[in-house]
Amino acid sequence: MLLYQRPTSGHSYKARLLLSFLGIDYESVVITAKDGRNQVEDRYYDLNPRGQIPTLEDDGVVLWGSTAILVYLARRYDPSKSWLPEEPAQQAAVMQWMELAQNEVNGLFLSRAIQRFNYAGDLVAAQKAGNKALDILERRLSGNDWLAGRGPTIGDIACFPYAAVAHDNGFDLAARPAVRAWFSRIHRLPGFVPMPGMQELPSEGSVP
Amino acid sequence: MLLYQRPTSGHSYKARLLLSFLGIDYESVVITAKDGRNQVEDRYYDLNPRGQIPTLEDDGVVLWGSTAILVYLARRYDPSKSWLPEEPAQQAAVMQWMELAQNEVNGLFLSRAIQRFNYAGDLVAAQKAGNKALDILERRLSGNDWLAGRGPTIGDIACFPYAAVAHDNGFDLAARPAVRAWFSRIHRLPGFVPMPGMQELPSEGSVP
Repeated sequence: MLLYQRPTSGHSYKARLLLSFLGIDYESVVITAKDGRNQVEDRYYDLNPRGQIPTLEDDGVVLWGSTAILVYLARRYDPSKSWLPEEPAQQAAVMQWMELAQNEVNGLFLSRAIQRFNYAGDLVAAQKAGNKALDILERRLSGNDWLAGRGPTIGDIACFPYAAVAHDNGFDLAARPAVRAWFSRIHRLPGFVPMPGMQELPSEGSVP
Repeated sequence: MLLYQRPTSGHSYKARLLLSFLGIDYESVVITAKDGRNQVEDRYYDLNPRGQIPTLEDDGVVLWGSTAILVYLARRYDPSKSWLPEEPAQQAAVMQWMELAQNEVNGLFLSRAIQRFNYAGDLVAAQKAGNKALDILERRLSGNDWLAGRGPTIGDIACFPYAAVAHDNGFDLAARPAVRAWFSRIHRLPGFVPMPGMQELPSEGSVP
């Protein structure tokens, strides 16, 4: 199995995290970035027409985008089917959070990309979306341990990375205690691996 | 079954289209918009924390967002399982296009919303994303009848609405013949219903 990715990319980290939770070995092909753009050759577009990371190659199957990769890994390599339940309402509940990850949570990605990686974009709009994402997560996680259902799913994985590094880009995590408690629950899952920057996470005890 | 939606919303139309393909009766609750914002009451946020449309209520299940609604309807009400195949690689291939719909294709939505519905946003960035979406669709559909697999899936439904009205917002559909042929195939599916504005679609014959 081959993962085209970059260590500092949260979208790539979603795939790395599920691969680690599932105990799957893979080879990594690192795609570098410059001025907010992935440095890919033309032939990369044959694998991934969006020119983005991550891309997964497994046994002749090529998939682009974190949503598709998470669904594939959960469907194919999770015999417990807990990361993506099969029951229609449960599966769709997971998809709600995959969709939030591609929309409002993407504001957290954009804020980070604009401030730290020279990405072009509207920082004010990204921050507004990012704060909305954190508010929605806080509301859901006040009284629920996980975003969909009773245990962790790929919905949690999809929303986690850019929330987890948001404090580093000016977002107020001190005001979101349920989100921070959810971070801790994810950190304690067997097989958890951090992404760069996540070492600086505010611990629950360190925030007043 | 209750669908909170608006006739001119392409995201709502995705749900209406699959409901029609599956022959499902539902009641509609129309959410009006003003200055690019959905006019919702506070209690709507109890159903949908994003405050967006569509939202589906069915038999005690409440789901927000077109991705989750399409997955739910396909999983629960499509005995053929053709709209969302169960095999891991096939299901993930569908998800690739659901993800494109939430990203680059959303540029087509934003271009329309900014130009026609007084929505705040960066038109140039939206047009760039929208043209990238159309290029990716054109490339895939040159030689393939459908986006994922051999027949239509919810991936086609997710990408279709804002592509189908893009010509009305300055995008060049004449240069994308494979996309127009795909429109025709979707129009010919049993149960097809149009969305407002789609009557003005360029026919294949009318474009030089």
